[in-house]
Amino acid sequence: MTLHTDRHFEGELQSLQEMLLRMGGLVERQIAAAIESLVERDSPLARDVIDADREVNQMDLLVDEECLKVIALHQPAASDLRFVTTALKVNTDLERIGDMAVNISQRALELNEEPILKPYIDIPRMAKEAQRMVHTSLDAFVRRDTQLAREVIEEDDIVDNYAHQVYRELLSFMVEEPKTIARATRILLVSKYLERIADHATNIAEMVVFMVDGKMIRHATSLPDDTMES
Amino acid sequence: MTLHTDRHFEGELQSLQEMLLRMGGLVERQIAAAIESLVERDSPLARDVIDADREVNQMDLLVDEECLKVIALHQPAASDLRFVTTALKVNTDLERIGDMAVNISQRALELNEEPILKPYIDIPRMAKEAQRMVHTSLDAFVRRDTQLAREVIEEDDIVDNYAHQVYRELLSFMVEEPKTIARATRILLVSKYLERIADHATNIAEMVVFMVDGKMIRHATSLPDDTMES
Repeated sequence: MTLHTDRHFEGELQSLQEMLLRMGGLVERQIAAAIESLVERDSPLARDVIDADREVNQMDLLVDEECLKVIALHQPAASDLRFVTTALKVNTDLERIGDMAVNISQRALELNEEPILKPYIDIPRMAKEAQRMVHTSLDAFVRRDTQLAREVIEEDDIVDNYAHQVYRELLSFMVEEPKTIARATRILLVSKYLERIADHATNIAEMVVFMVDGKMIRHATSLPDDTMES
Repeated sequence: MTLHTDRHFEGELQSLQEMLLRMGGLVERQIAAAIESLVERDSPLARDVIDADREVNQMDLLVDEECLKVIALHQPAASDLRFVTTALKVNTDLERIGDMAVNISQRALELNEEPILKPYIDIPRMAKEAQRMVHTSLDAFVRRDTQLAREVIEEDDIVDNYAHQVYRELLSFMVEEPKTIARATRILLVSKYLERIADHATNIAEMVVFMVDGKMIRHATSLPDDTMES
């Protein structure tokens, strides 16, 4: 491989990374807007999020095409190939995080039609944490930084703790006042969507560790878990 | 490329497909066993499912390695490259379906400790449907059969309808008898896990259509949706 093609390849990788970061920025904004539409009871904003999913899907296609182009044109070896195939998977996780923002907005539309159950306190905190995990996991990927990736994996517990807290609180609402049950189950779902966003970020972080160190951390140390134990 | 390498490449693709089908068979059995552990209140079986997730994760690694090997050794072009990169994504969906079987088993362990709320009728039907979707989507992938893939995508509505029915029924249980709330929310989650299994199968089917026809069907026609509208 000549220096020229090397540099061309580096340039392609660079632009692939930038596309992924743009995709990440887009889904982060989708999460933030979805939560704002819930907290501020802003249904037009919720509909904006649902509409903007089209852009997320468009980006998803573009990133995949870019990955295939890089592989087909440059036939990268070993660690470069692993980087590009990991990018394909990271991209899918980002796209599905976008889907979660849509689901949150759908629940917001329904909840905004009904009287407020209580002010949202933990949900926006949980969302901020999940959003940060997405951001950091993607940073870890483009920098190939396993230290950063491991931080993301540890943060997953914070989100799980919030989810647990939200569940217990909603449960007591439902038990004390059965007419809150329909609303409470919708809020419970929002908390589940945020958990899934954090899970996607954790998946990305785990893939980074595997890509760099060849170590499969999740599979070795823990199981997929959920936070419904009471 | 000589005839010899062509045949070698065909052989590798063949073995990749067989590995994916084995992975699919494994996660199908995990779904069936998870539901059986719930319906038959068989907690040792639930623990077996949780333990067997290790095998699913092992297969996930093997399939990914095989995909990378095929790309690195044979540098497939155009449609063959797309097949192998799609296999990477299909593999991830299968692994996460395995995670859903684990989550169902975790809820089964909790539910089995408490008095039965009511016999499970719709949940096992829904599970059977979701399991069939997984099987068919994988068939569609290895046969590159878009007709079959489109059937899977249509079946997703059946699972969503079951989920809707389960939700309404559980809601009325909770409203009439608040002491059922903790159990009912767990069963509601089981139904959500099954919905997600069906979603993964739908994702696989959509990737098959895109891989073969170059048409992005989901993104054009629908949005990620959930079934909490009452």
